[in-house]
Amino acid sequence: MKTAIRTQYTLSELVHGLEVTLKGDPTCVIEGVSPIQQAQPGHVTFLTNRLYSKHLASTQAAAVILSAADAEHCPVNAIISSNPYYTYSQIAAFFTHPTAVEAGVHPSAIIGNDSAIDPSASIGAHCVIGRHVKIGANVVIGPGCVVGDFSEIGEATQLDAKVTVYHRIKIGKRVRMASGVVIGGDGFGFANQKGVWHKVPQLGSVEIGDDVDIGANTTIDRGAIENTVIENGVKLDNLVQIGHNVKIGANTLICGCTGVAGSTVIGKNCIIAGASNINGHITITDNVIITGNTGVEKSITEPGIYSSGVVGVVTNQEFRKNNARFYRLENLMHRVKTLESTLKMLTEGKAS
Amino acid sequence: MKTAIRTQYTLSELVHGLEVTLKGDPTCVIEGVSPIQQAQPGHVTFLTNRLYSKHLASTQAAAVILSAADAEHCPVNAIISSNPYYTYSQIAAFFTHPTAVEAGVHPSAIIGNDSAIDPSASIGAHCVIGRHVKIGANVVIGPGCVVGDFSEIGEATQLDAKVTVYHRIKIGKRVRMASGVVIGGDGFGFANQKGVWHKVPQLGSVEIGDDVDIGANTTIDRGAIENTVIENGVKLDNLVQIGHNVKIGANTLICGCTGVAGSTVIGKNCIIAGASNINGHITITDNVIITGNTGVEKSITEPGIYSSGVVGVVTNQEFRKNNARFYRLENLMHRVKTLESTLKMLTEGKAS
Amino acid sequence: MKTAIRTQYTLSELVHGLEVTLKGDPTCVIEGVSPIQQAQPGHVTFLTNRLYSKHLASTQAAAVILSAADAEHCPVNAIISSNPYYTYSQIAAFFTHPTAVEAGVHPSAIIGNDSAIDPSASIGAHCVIGRHVKIGANVVIGPGCVVGDFSEIGEATQLDAKVTVYHRIKIGKRVRMASGVVIGGDGFGFANQKGVWHKVPQLGSVEIGDDVDIGANTTIDRGAIENTVIENGVKLDNLVQIGHNVKIGANTLICGCTGVAGSTVIGKNCIIAGASNINGHITITDNVIITGNTGVEKSITEPGIYSSGVVGVVTNQEFRKNNARFYRLENLMHRVKTLESTLKMLTEGKAS
Repeated sequence: MKTAIRTQYTLSELVHGLEVTLKGDPTCVIEGVSPIQQAQPGHVTFLTNRLYSKHLASTQAAAVILSAADAEHCPVNAIISSNPYYTYSQIAAFFTHPTAVEAGVHPSAIIGNDSAIDPSASIGAHCVIGRHVKIGANVVIGPGCVVGDFSEIGEATQLDAKVTVYHRIKIGKRVRMASGVVIGGDGFGFANQKGVWHKVPQLGSVEIGDDVDIGANTTIDRGAIENTVIENGVKLDNLVQIGHNVKIGANTLICGCTGVAGSTVIGKNCIIAGASNINGHITITDNVIITGNTGVEKSITEPGIYSSGVVGVVTNQEFRKNNARFYRLENLMHRVKTLESTLKMLTEGKAS
Repeated sequence: MKTAIRTQYTLSELVHGLEVTLKGDPTCVIEGVSPIQQAQPGHVTFLTNRLYSKHLASTQAAAVILSAADAEHCPVNAIISSNPYYTYSQIAAFFTHPTAVEAGVHPSAIIGNDSAIDPSASIGAHCVIGRHVKIGANVVIGPGCVVGDFSEIGEATQLDAKVTVYHRIKIGKRVRMASGVVIGGDGFGFANQKGVWHKVPQLGSVEIGDDVDIGANTTIDRGAIENTVIENGVKLDNLVQIGHNVKIGANTLICGCTGVAGSTVIGKNCIIAGASNINGHITITDNVIITGNTGVEKSITEPGIYSSGVVGVVTNQEFRKNNARFYRLENLMHRVKTLESTLKMLTEGKAS
Repeated sequence: MKTAIRTQYTLSELVHGLEVTLKGDPTCVIEGVSPIQQAQPGHVTFLTNRLYSKHLASTQAAAVILSAADAEHCPVNAIISSNPYYTYSQIAAFFTHPTAVEAGVHPSAIIGNDSAIDPSASIGAHCVIGRHVKIGANVVIGPGCVVGDFSEIGEATQLDAKVTVYHRIKIGKRVRMASGVVIGGDGFGFANQKGVWHKVPQLGSVEIGDDVDIGANTTIDRGAIENTVIENGVKLDNLVQIGHNVKIGANTLICGCTGVAGSTVIGKNCIIAGASNINGHITITDNVIITGNTGVEKSITEPGIYSSGVVGVVTNQEFRKNNARFYRLENLMHRVKTLESTLKMLTEGKAS
């Protein structure tokens, strides 16, 4: 059953079928990938971020994946691509260490009645799968996962260790969830009656499309009435919180530590940088970019790049001065107003 | 053992015993709940948020729960309530799908010596319960939970899958914890001696009152000397962090992605909106509302609504201009000061 | 096998070998530790935070750990230290309740082939340990942990319940990880090709040094090409996110709810307060302090204290005025400019 893992490829093997131009020696043997500033002989590297351009001239790599413009300055074999990072992702795939996974249900896993698990699927040790669950072909469920009653997991989806999928959740194909993800916990809904909070039943579910990635310890709540919906190709980083009833459009990407409050609708092809917080009950249209640490308090109706707050790390001393000035703004405005009236009297006095 | 789940109720059944006025047909049959803008025939919906008022006239719902004022414009059966959201929570409870739970300890669960588990409690698969643990009547502990030595869990409390309760923790009655919650990890206390951080023993515990709700992957640290205390009726959303020694007063509600640093005391009946961060060693009095994304750096001694920072998402271009202006404030102040002295000289010159 | 837990010590026993001066009765019997404002007779307390000085005069404690300056006002036994908090951490260690841990592998744990587990290590119930794993002497792995293939855990390291360590991760000695920690999930790397995000293989690992502490539900991603590196003595609080390729220097401390984006390098002996967010691809030098809730968008090259944004919680009414003023800054600048030119004309007119 063992397959020897291949560790060497020629450049021509690596670029076979890719939309790239190879400038240099196609028989050059590659044994791995490295970052450009620390690349080793026999390794391939890539250049996409301007911050690292300075390392090109002195790179020890055997080959560099880069744009046509950068290729002019490349001292070694060049793999020229209109999208070097994408090309890198394709070439790096040759050097992954696949983890051995055996099909079948681990003897320590607990499987509820009336569940249908495809024989090609792998259910890890100490998993607890509920009743009436459907698990598709080639699904891999890591150790210690819990899948609730009536949930469905599409083919080739991979849950790492200790993912929780609550009951009646629908997950698409080729989805990846890192460890500690929680899908379908009750949304945060409470009605206040005479000072006491009463739980509002959370009757919706979560629908996750195909090719979605979800990072470690990220949480997605089930809907209150409607479902929470994560469309195809969405990518969520670690420690992201998605509130109940939220809809996230296809191919939108949300970076770590971001929270999206309930009932908000985010469009397709958006990028939301890290540590942002998105208000509830708003709509963000397609093709919006939100820079890091932005609070989005209202709907965004036009594509574009958006930000909020005051950004710029400074010394605490400078910061204190800035803060003081900010809180003296009203005073400043009054002084300007006074200046304006005084000056007006003065000029009018002169004119008279 | 099976109970057929009832799926239809007349309006009069649904409002029986509630403090509401039914305007319309009490025999109307209801099969579910929907949001107002997508309500289906045979469903009941509710109107509480001004943002959704425009959907009232055209709703397809069989009945709407709303205020007396809104009821005048209701085209269908009206369930008139002074607190429509609370009434909705009561009616929606008819349409929950209860998950089947069997009393008793799952054979795969590991139970330590000298623990007392009420026979009506349910301990899920692969749970690990320590020694000297007390688990009350009708407690439901989901699969994969861990409860440490000497901890106590009050009656009718429900832990979803993979909750961790450390040792010597006391949890009240009717508490609900979503998957991934961690109660009682060591507080973040280190003493720096000659550049090296030494762990400060965390000798306190966590006390959680009755009717507390805790969202997915939220963490509450045990106290350093005193206990961390979460009073009755507190509601915590997902990914909230509560530091050691914190006290949270009864019926306070904290939304997702908020952190409360150590030794801070928060009063009763507060609402802290999402992504806020509360400094350590401060006190927030009762009945305080903190708007979203607020940094609370100092104590708040009067009830009211509080905020911080600069809020308002704008285009990145506008944001860059704002940022630049902010950092030119000192320059602006100097210019105003110069204007003031020049004008003073000028007017005094004139006067003389 | 049982050891009676000792609960009483004389002051002279407690300070034996410590660099302190005891002023008072060395035979005084101590039974526990308390906070200064609530200290009980027979307890020792400490004074390090100015906020609590007012409680010294009336403390009921049997002894107080404090500085020489404060000792002058101490009404009870004084343990005088140049670093009272560190001294407290040493004395408090006498009063910890050690949790009983048995060496060996729990029968319910699943251990992969070719793994080497030291006989003195303890592997808890329902753990899943992969193949080719090395676990050192006196390691304690709590219930429900998962350790992936080829990972190594150094001696005396302690994983609390339900920690996930992915494959090929290297963890040092005396490391502590709280429940729910996830080490080595894939970094957040996707290449966009024609609107679709393609996963970039994450080929690096995570290296964690000795004496590192990691709080509950914190996540550390594996590197994309290089490893993510956490050096010796680093302390991370709960719900912290460390992106791929990040390096954190020795003895740096990061408080809760902070995110560090990918490929950033943080120096040694830094303190990053809670809810901060650190941009990717930047460098923060040694001995930097970042105050709470700071966004660090660019590299910091000089030691010092840094902050960002506008801080200061105010009433929502005041906040709205501030916000409005901020967005009128451009208008204010124009008005000042107009004043300047008018005044210039006026004074030049006068001069002529």
